Amino acid sequence: MIMAKNKRTEQVNQITWTSPLRIRFNEVDSLGIVWHGHYISYFEDGRESFGIQHGMTYLDIHRSGYTTPIVKSTCEHKLPLKYGENAYIETSLIDTKAAKIIYRYRILNESNQVVCLGETIQVFLDASGSLQLYVPEFFQQWKDKLDFAN
Amino acid sequence: MIMAKNKRTEQVNQITWTSPLRIRFNEVDSLGIVWHGHYISYFEDGRESFGIQHGMTYLDIHRSGYTTPIVKSTCEHKLPLKYGENAYIETSLIDTKAAKIIYRYRILNESNQVVCLGETIQVFLDASGSLQLYVPEFFQQWKDKLDFAN
Amino acid sequence: MIMAKNKRTEQVNQITWTSPLRIRFNEVDSLGIVWHGHYISYFEDGRESFGIQHGMTYLDIHRSGYTTPIVKSTCEHKLPLKYGENAYIETSLIDTKAAKIIYRYRILNESNQVVCLGETIQVFLDASGSLQLYVPEFFQQWKDKLDFAN
Amino acid sequence: MIMAKNKRTEQVNQITWTSPLRIRFNEVDSLGIVWHGHYISYFEDGRESFGIQHGMTYLDIHRSGYTTPIVKSTCEHKLPLKYGENAYIETSLIDTKAAKIIYRYRILNESNQVVCLGETIQVFLDASGSLQLYVPEFFQQWKDKLDFAN
Repeated sequence: MIMAKNKRTEQVNQITWTSPLRIRFNEVDSLGIVWHGHYISYFEDGRESFGIQHGMTYLDIHRSGYTTPIVKSTCEHKLPLKYGENAYIETSLIDTKAAKIIYRYRILNESNQVVCLGETIQVFLDASGSLQLYVPEFFQQWKDKLDFAN
Repeated sequence: MIMAKNKRTEQVNQITWTSPLRIRFNEVDSLGIVWHGHYISYFEDGRESFGIQHGMTYLDIHRSGYTTPIVKSTCEHKLPLKYGENAYIETSLIDTKAAKIIYRYRILNESNQVVCLGETIQVFLDASGSLQLYVPEFFQQWKDKLDFAN
Repeated sequence: MIMAKNKRTEQVNQITWTSPLRIRFNEVDSLGIVWHGHYISYFEDGRESFGIQHGMTYLDIHRSGYTTPIVKSTCEHKLPLKYGENAYIETSLIDTKAAKIIYRYRILNESNQVVCLGETIQVFLDASGSLQLYVPEFFQQWKDKLDFAN
Repeated sequence: MIMAKNKRTEQVNQITWTSPLRIRFNEVDSLGIVWHGHYISYFEDGRESFGIQHGMTYLDIHRSGYTTPIVKSTCEHKLPLKYGENAYIETSLIDTKAAKIIYRYRILNESNQVVCLGETIQVFLDASGSLQLYVPEFFQQWKDKLDFAN
C-alpha cells in the first residue's frame, strides 16, 4: 500500500534484491503464525543479504568508522506466515539525497502474495557518536556505483 | 514527537499506564545497546501490563472467541538504551470508533528522556478468521467502562 | 569431549548431516560474540535441516499425530563465534532402541575448529499428550530405512 | 532429579535465591507452551536476579576487568509452561573450589511443580581473554562474605 503509493506519486529510484526467507519453528507463536516482532529480524536478514550482494555489509560500514543505527522502522502485516512456508523478501535501497539509508521491504509467500510491507531508516554516526549531516564519502562512492533504476 | 503532535492537533482521548522495563543482557547487541527489534517485544510487555491492570488480557480476548493480530507497528528511536538502565514504558490506549485497537508507546530512560516512540494497530478476527468491521461487543463494553481522559 | 568419549567407548551408530550456519547480527551480544542461548536455536536449525534432508520434518511428525518435545538439552562451548563468520553444524541422529530421539551436534567455524558440542533428547507424546513407551511405528519405519554407519 | 541426587550424595553447599518468572507471549510456540530454548534466557534472568540480590552483577564483573562466559549449560524439562502461568525460578550458587561459577536452577509453576532443572558453568577470562586457573580475588572476596548453607 505504502509502496504502491510511493511508486505512483513520488517516482522513487530504487535497487531491489530478493532473498529466500526461512521461518524458524521458534518464530511461530501459539496461533501457529510468525510472531509479528520477528519481521524486524527478517528485514535485517534482507538488508544483510542486499549488503553482501552489493558489497556494503555491516562490517564494511564498521571498518569505515561509522555506525548506522535504525531511527525508524515500520511494518505492515497483510497476511500471516506459517511454519514450513517458503517465503522470500524483496529488499529495496531507496535513492535519497538525505544523510540517511532508507530500505523498503516486501515479504511474499510461496503463492506470491504480499505478506508484509516495511521500511527502515538509518542515520550515520561517526566514531564519536555524532550524527552526520552529510552522507559519508565511503557510502556516497558506493552508491554512485550502483545502478538505480528509475 | 508523534504523540506531542497528536495531542495538540487531534485531541486524542487516551488512557495511559506506566510499567517498568527490564533490559535483558541478551537484548543488547555488539554496540552495547538494545537491538532495535526488541522494542517490539517491549511494546508487547507494555500492552500486556496495560491489559492486566485494566482487565483485558490476551487470554480474556481469546476466551471471548477473538484474536487481535497486529496489522501495523511503527517504532521511532530517539536514544539508545544500555544494559543495566532502569527504563519504563508508558502504554496508551487510544480512543477510536474504528474496529481497531490502537496503542501508543513511550519508552523513557532513568533520566526521564524519551528513548523510543511507537504505535501498534490491531484488528479483530472471529474464530473463523473473518475480519470484524465493528468492535465486538465484549470489547466495546470493556471500553465503555474505561475513563478516557480528554 | 562427550562425542569423542562416545565414539571411542560406546560405538555409537549415527547418521550425520552438515548444514551451513548463518549468524544474525542480533544474535551477537555486547562482547561481540554469539550469545550462548542462541546455540539452542542453531541446534534446532541443524535438526530441521537433517529432517528435510532425510524426510522426517516437524510437520511430518505432527501429521502422524505425535509431538516430540525436548526433555533434555546440553551445550558445551569451546570457542566463541563472531558476527560474519561462516560456520556450519554437523547434526547426528543417534541410533537408539529407546523411545527417544537423540541428536548430537558439532558446530565448527570456518577454520574447522569445534566451537560447540551439544545434545538434545526428545520423547514421543501422542495426541492426548501421553508419553509413548515404544517408538511409534511411523518413526521406526523411517529409521529402518536409514543407513546408520557403525 | 539431578539436584535431589546431588543433595543426597555430594553434600553441596549452596545459596538459593527465588525470583518470579514472567512468560512473554512471544516465548510460547505453536504447541501453546514455552519454546525450550527460552529456558536458557530464564536461567540468565535468575542469575541476574541472584547477582543483584547478592551484589555481584554482570556489570560488577565487567568493572573488575573480567568476563565470565558460559562454557556449559544443561536443561532438563519435566513439565511444560503455558502463557499466563505465574512461575518462579530458584537460582543456586554452588560452592566450589574450582575457578568456575556454577549455578543450578529449578523453575516451578504456580502449583509448585518442578517444570525445569538446569545448570550453567562459567569460567573467568581476564581482559586479554586468558582463562584464569584460580578464582580472581574480587570474586573470592565476594564469595567469602556469602553464607553458604550446608
